[in-house]
Amino acid sequence: MGWIDISVTVRSGMAHWPTDEAVGIERICDLDRGDPYNLSRILMSLHTGTHMDAPIHFIRDGAGIDEMPLEAAIGRARVIEIRDRELIRPAELQEHGIERGERILFKTANSGSLWDSDAFSREFVSVSEAAASFLAAAGITLVGVDYLSVGGFNTDIAKVHLALLEAGVWIIEGLNLAGVEPGDYELVCLPLKVARGDGAPARAILRPLR
Amino acid sequence: MGWIDISVTVRSGMAHWPTDEAVGIERICDLDRGDPYNLSRILMSLHTGTHMDAPIHFIRDGAGIDEMPLEAAIGRARVIEIRDRELIRPAELQEHGIERGERILFKTANSGSLWDSDAFSREFVSVSEAAASFLAAAGITLVGVDYLSVGGFNTDIAKVHLALLEAGVWIIEGLNLAGVEPGDYELVCLPLKVARGDGAPARAILRPLR
Repeated sequence: MGWIDISVTVRSGMAHWPTDEAVGIERICDLDRGDPYNLSRILMSLHTGTHMDAPIHFIRDGAGIDEMPLEAAIGRARVIEIRDRELIRPAELQEHGIERGERILFKTANSGSLWDSDAFSREFVSVSEAAASFLAAAGITLVGVDYLSVGGFNTDIAKVHLALLEAGVWIIEGLNLAGVEPGDYELVCLPLKVARGDGAPARAILRPLR
Repeated sequence: MGWIDISVTVRSGMAHWPTDEAVGIERICDLDRGDPYNLSRILMSLHTGTHMDAPIHFIRDGAGIDEMPLEAAIGRARVIEIRDRELIRPAELQEHGIERGERILFKTANSGSLWDSDAFSREFVSVSEAAASFLAAAGITLVGVDYLSVGGFNTDIAKVHLALLEAGVWIIEGLNLAGVEPGDYELVCLPLKVARGDGAPARAILRPLR
């Protein structure tokens, strides 16, 4: 069927936003200890690994992730490769003729390297505030980025999120697009249906459009 | 697009297997407390709500959920309505002409009622040991059930799981099929990619086949 997994693996010790909870997976029942089965529990931030952001992440009384229409994250999507190794900026976006309703995934220098490390990287390619406004004005449906935040670590992360979330753009963060060629795909991204969740871990897959 | 969500909502206090961890969702950062955003963490069993089981749940050195081929849980699936209000048994299954490779979701009396309660129900319709052997021998790819275990609470739950997992059948538990008519659908079930996970929370959706 040709589905490509663009999710990162969830595991104890994986990179996470420094102020977020670390991932802790603990085997509570263990065949090797004589239990009838293996069974684990997980503790994690809702914003670790491949995940989605909901409006309520930054907007008081905004929608929770459980209110996202499934169609926002299922359907035609475009992978755009970004040359800029610091920021996704309007000038580079203008080359791509982005249209209303599109689902856009940005493949940046992050995908090739940052996921190899369990240490959080403060230096990653993110969406500039001007580019967030550009995407909001363009009226896209969804944006996906290939590290842990759509906004940069030392920039005004709130303004980038707000520009997108207030415009009704759904956000996927933490994709791994290494090995994915730019172009048109069918996207399926399914976040856990967490009640009033400010975000949720998700699994995301792509299939080339024929 | 016509996608039907057959996942249950994940929330604090929801029904869970009595020996499993309860779901705890905690807002760590809160706009109402002056934080720059809302951000929550979650503690849960990997086997709560809508989730999948991996072979390693019952088989030492079995595959983890991160090793599941995506195709196992994506593609044509059949919703079979079960009349029996206690057990899914071979006699009833024989009416349905189940074939090798099928993905089968059982809609039972569970779907209409059990999910309305936050209390775990020990009385739910489950797969009998003979039916698990029947499904394994039939060579199905995947089975989905509409409460928290494919095996019953007071039956030999290990034998039911083992018959299926040893035959390479992937298992979805915790579906809500209320309102879904029996028939043929396209299924997409995406579990979180948890490293060596004995299971993982999942989101599952259906779309009627045209």
